[in-house]
Amino acid sequence: MLVVMCQQATPDEIDAVVAAIQAKGCTARPIPGGERVAIGILHNKGAMEASYFLAFPGVKDAIPVTCPYKLVSREFQPKATVIQVGDVSIGNGHLTLIAGPCAVESETQCLNIARKIRRAGAHVFRGGAFKPRTSPYSFQGLQEKGLQVLARVRDETGLPVVTEAIDHDVFDLVEQYADIIQIGTRNMQNYSLLRRAGQSHKPILLKRGMAATIEEWLMAAEYILEGGNTQVILCERGIRTFAHHSRNTLDLSAVPVVLKESHLPIIVDPSHASGRRDQVIPLSRAAVAVGAHGLMVEVHDAPEKALSDGAQSLYPEQFEMLCRHVRSIFDVFHSSH
Amino acid sequence: MLVVMCQQATPDEIDAVVAAIQAKGCTARPIPGGERVAIGILHNKGAMEASYFLAFPGVKDAIPVTCPYKLVSREFQPKATVIQVGDVSIGNGHLTLIAGPCAVESETQCLNIARKIRRAGAHVFRGGAFKPRTSPYSFQGLQEKGLQVLARVRDETGLPVVTEAIDHDVFDLVEQYADIIQIGTRNMQNYSLLRRAGQSHKPILLKRGMAATIEEWLMAAEYILEGGNTQVILCERGIRTFAHHSRNTLDLSAVPVVLKESHLPIIVDPSHASGRRDQVIPLSRAAVAVGAHGLMVEVHDAPEKALSDGAQSLYPEQFEMLCRHVRSIFDVFHSSH
Amino acid sequence: MLVVMCQQATPDEIDAVVAAIQAKGCTARPIPGGERVAIGILHNKGAMEASYFLAFPGVKDAIPVTCPYKLVSREFQPKATVIQVGDVSIGNGHLTLIAGPCAVESETQCLNIARKIRRAGAHVFRGGAFKPRTSPYSFQGLQEKGLQVLARVRDETGLPVVTEAIDHDVFDLVEQYADIIQIGTRNMQNYSLLRRAGQSHKPILLKRGMAATIEEWLMAAEYILEGGNTQVILCERGIRTFAHHSRNTLDLSAVPVVLKESHLPIIVDPSHASGRRDQVIPLSRAAVAVGAHGLMVEVHDAPEKALSDGAQSLYPEQFEMLCRHVRSIFDVFHSSH
Amino acid sequence: MLVVMCQQATPDEIDAVVAAIQAKGCTARPIPGGERVAIGILHNKGAMEASYFLAFPGVKDAIPVTCPYKLVSREFQPKATVIQVGDVSIGNGHLTLIAGPCAVESETQCLNIARKIRRAGAHVFRGGAFKPRTSPYSFQGLQEKGLQVLARVRDETGLPVVTEAIDHDVFDLVEQYADIIQIGTRNMQNYSLLRRAGQSHKPILLKRGMAATIEEWLMAAEYILEGGNTQVILCERGIRTFAHHSRNTLDLSAVPVVLKESHLPIIVDPSHASGRRDQVIPLSRAAVAVGAHGLMVEVHDAPEKALSDGAQSLYPEQFEMLCRHVRSIFDVFHSSH
Repeated sequence: MLVVMCQQATPDEIDAVVAAIQAKGCTARPIPGGERVAIGILHNKGAMEASYFLAFPGVKDAIPVTCPYKLVSREFQPKATVIQVGDVSIGNGHLTLIAGPCAVESETQCLNIARKIRRAGAHVFRGGAFKPRTSPYSFQGLQEKGLQVLARVRDETGLPVVTEAIDHDVFDLVEQYADIIQIGTRNMQNYSLLRRAGQSHKPILLKRGMAATIEEWLMAAEYILEGGNTQVILCERGIRTFAHHSRNTLDLSAVPVVLKESHLPIIVDPSHASGRRDQVIPLSRAAVAVGAHGLMVEVHDAPEKALSDGAQSLYPEQFEMLCRHVRSIFDVFHSSH
Repeated sequence: MLVVMCQQATPDEIDAVVAAIQAKGCTARPIPGGERVAIGILHNKGAMEASYFLAFPGVKDAIPVTCPYKLVSREFQPKATVIQVGDVSIGNGHLTLIAGPCAVESETQCLNIARKIRRAGAHVFRGGAFKPRTSPYSFQGLQEKGLQVLARVRDETGLPVVTEAIDHDVFDLVEQYADIIQIGTRNMQNYSLLRRAGQSHKPILLKRGMAATIEEWLMAAEYILEGGNTQVILCERGIRTFAHHSRNTLDLSAVPVVLKESHLPIIVDPSHASGRRDQVIPLSRAAVAVGAHGLMVEVHDAPEKALSDGAQSLYPEQFEMLCRHVRSIFDVFHSSH
Repeated sequence: MLVVMCQQATPDEIDAVVAAIQAKGCTARPIPGGERVAIGILHNKGAMEASYFLAFPGVKDAIPVTCPYKLVSREFQPKATVIQVGDVSIGNGHLTLIAGPCAVESETQCLNIARKIRRAGAHVFRGGAFKPRTSPYSFQGLQEKGLQVLARVRDETGLPVVTEAIDHDVFDLVEQYADIIQIGTRNMQNYSLLRRAGQSHKPILLKRGMAATIEEWLMAAEYILEGGNTQVILCERGIRTFAHHSRNTLDLSAVPVVLKESHLPIIVDPSHASGRRDQVIPLSRAAVAVGAHGLMVEVHDAPEKALSDGAQSLYPEQFEMLCRHVRSIFDVFHSSH
Repeated sequence: MLVVMCQQATPDEIDAVVAAIQAKGCTARPIPGGERVAIGILHNKGAMEASYFLAFPGVKDAIPVTCPYKLVSREFQPKATVIQVGDVSIGNGHLTLIAGPCAVESETQCLNIARKIRRAGAHVFRGGAFKPRTSPYSFQGLQEKGLQVLARVRDETGLPVVTEAIDHDVFDLVEQYADIIQIGTRNMQNYSLLRRAGQSHKPILLKRGMAATIEEWLMAAEYILEGGNTQVILCERGIRTFAHHSRNTLDLSAVPVVLKESHLPIIVDPSHASGRRDQVIPLSRAAVAVGAHGLMVEVHDAPEKALSDGAQSLYPEQFEMLCRHVRSIFDVFHSSH
């Protein structure tokens, strides 16, 4: 933290800030400049709040210098985390393709789609059993019955399954059935759910909140790691901006930043970001090209009949071509030429 | 819903959309225009998803025409809702001032602040017992002990109290102690918490999500009303934008829009929006001037020692002057001159 | 500027940054911390670019500490600027009301509106002669004929007039006719236009760009002051955010920030921000309550027939009531109770 | 345009809207629905303003149905535009690589860089002679001397050159020297500059404004085409969002949307979007993977000594590898497997 004083700050005001820093058990290091004094704070344990210092007279600004996350950071753990789910490796050097319908609708539907995406080269099956919906009047998912369908898909096809836990009670249930537990974008800062995830022995797929900075997102992951669960997969899924040609704006620059800041795997969900099938395919290619460790894509065998989000679901044959393309793109910059 | 076809859409493509609308039990009304055909959807029950129609060949756009909320809308209930909490009326024609520290720190602190804000004219005491924190390493609140302090404040001062419920378990506890239960900005789309709030007999203060449109915010309120609890107070608290001179950008235009669209009371929290004391006072005046039914403001007797968010807390004497100012401003356009 | 090194930065990397700072004629002051080194840069003349230092190996971040503006800042000139236009004072302690139609349509129209707003208490007449339009097919304004109408309005009513100069050529023309020259939101970073304004002897009304930070806005004003023209009135008019219930989101928190950072007057245009008449009135009250030195509001005697932006124009009788309300609100916190 | 009436709208209010539509020479088609009436507007020539209808009593909303652009749209011209600059083809099926320093600093520097990027496979040389700078105190470019350097680069290397025209006067000058004239992000809505570009016989590279919707961007291009110049290359360069890990947020979803809506070529500038070299390389790959027709990338032979934006400039050897990668990525989905 650097506390920047006003040009007119008096020696008393500077002393008061120094005293406050020391009262917190830290070292204060005033740096006299040409026009004003700034005061560095050293040896602080844990996060300090910039806002605390803004309350002092004569203070112009308080600038955080170091990041508040620890366990998730690459400075803390330089080696990239690779998460193992059965035969599937997620992270560093691997390209993991997750696909399936937005919502689990029936066993027949899921098995049908699962077989097709496996044939195309997908590694994990996705499908929502509990759906967080903007409207209380919309379809809310098959719930536990949906989880049973997912278990059956895994038994039949050998594909591990990922599905969302929308609250504490649901988490307990999902944990029994799923191989990877998703925490959705609207729950990224649901701290009790994050704490529950920290106690799980299953990998967590943590979606970025629609308006979350990368720092807030990594802090959400920090909650999970701090609880003891180190298996977290980050998932970029678009942020809210003024642009409305896409449901959200896929922020692919997040990928290189996360790769630099953290050792955790990061994948991209272009389906929810864009909301339109004709954007999903090019954005999937882009996500792999930017360096993501994988994709989570919605695929439906009859999108025009899907109970939710049909417009963003690919047909199986589109997904099959997409898999070929993204594998080739991945090879372009992972092979040694 | 209006489905807009491409200029080159074929009669078969148009027929397919018409058939799909009818298959959903609605009426399709094609509107041939100069350059293209659009198809109106009539008699739909509940929300239809625009994205569903985007999946059809020949469709250029699908535009929702009517709002998806019902119970919260002024078209449904023209009469403004006024919520009664003891002697305090919230809504239409009343100006309700809620104040107190960010976090409950001790009984002495709270009683001290409560007496001062009551004297200044506040109607409700606020204080966080459970704090949602970005960092797992930050102070998380006094929890149930904090709730007991709040109960004691009410007993001593007669002020009703509002505090946040951050999850399902906490909700049960908060419901026993608080007069108004707050659902925070990060939980605005925590649908299981909203459903729980719908079963409560206590009024709910529902903060706007940091990246929520007004429609999404009203839909969150719809969850609560649909569950049977009609006592919802909306609270604007700033949205996330590119601007960083303020912690969030207080969106005061939301107030007239909500007043027009909904019958529910709406108040403003300028403390969390701005994050800086010197913005809280002018933004409070502006919030009342724009027509809000009240304010929720952080007041601390020793902001520089506050355990959280000290920089945005007013000194009691600042709050006292603020109360005088906002009452006068309120009178300017509520009296009949 | 503070250059923050990575935890693993080597002594050589630190030395390279120090050498680079010194090569620019500044003083480098390394600050060894618990976990990493940061290097303060002192005695820099003018702005340094953070991005320059990000290019060095071992550098994690480069954080600007001081603001890049000088002439516009209150640290440079503590005394508030008051701009005199005929009898009208704009700034510190004065409330200036500017009103008129979006576009000048005819002499009859303008005189009619001007008389009504003067009677209501307006101080300055506004009207666009050159209109920047999103579409090349839209009405582009009466151009020089419009300027002549404005001159006639001033002669008849005694009200000074403000109108927009949309480019260099137009500026020369507008300068001959107008009392205050407006630079619009889309031109806020048109640096050659700003340089031209810096050579003018007429006051400049500088609108905030739709996506401009306060720093960028003040830097735009700095261009004008640096050119020799110290008469700049800032005008907040809404920023672009994800919210679409309002055309733009009026950022009223900008007002207290500008008042603190700069000595220049600041007014608010709620008409263009909201785009809807029923938002203009409450937002005008809020703008005055937040501390703005004035308002610029669109008023039309027949909004439903206006050639542009009719929906956001007030009827004269609405404006008359608004004037009464905002004067009362202004008095609430400018009188000494 | 669809005008949506309130549920309570009276027959008189509906009639008034119908009359207003007819008064504008259009056809009004009321569509009675279950809960409310909507009125379609047919046979309108040119854009209608939604805001016009919001001014009528009983109107709830006015929704534009068709896009306001015409000449730039693919509905108007289905065949993709390919722009020829000497031997270089830009657009449909071609991958055009534009590279060079942010600012022209000297002939030696430019020739040195130009030879290296040509060897790496670049097709066009870029370099700023006139620099739009946020601060009046920053380096503003070598100006005409810079243009002469660019001409010399073209003569020596055979590479066509692109450079920015920041205002009307500069445009005349740039037009004499450059092969492609750039209009920068801050000038995207400088309509007089756009009109000037419409009269040029040189291709225009039109950057997206930092806060421009795709519709506004295409409307800016429409100004140029409407003036008679059909050679416009669109360039996505990042939008302003709440995220600050990147200078701006590169909006790659804009590429498929523009490809669908317009026949004009679209390229991507990842250097200005990100502002950091370590993001430029992955974002370049992503831009080609998403389907852009080319890249504009900053390359400098000594980024740490660059006069502007050094941190975002690639070293020539980085650019060389990047070229190899993006050509391979381009081939992945343009070849017929």
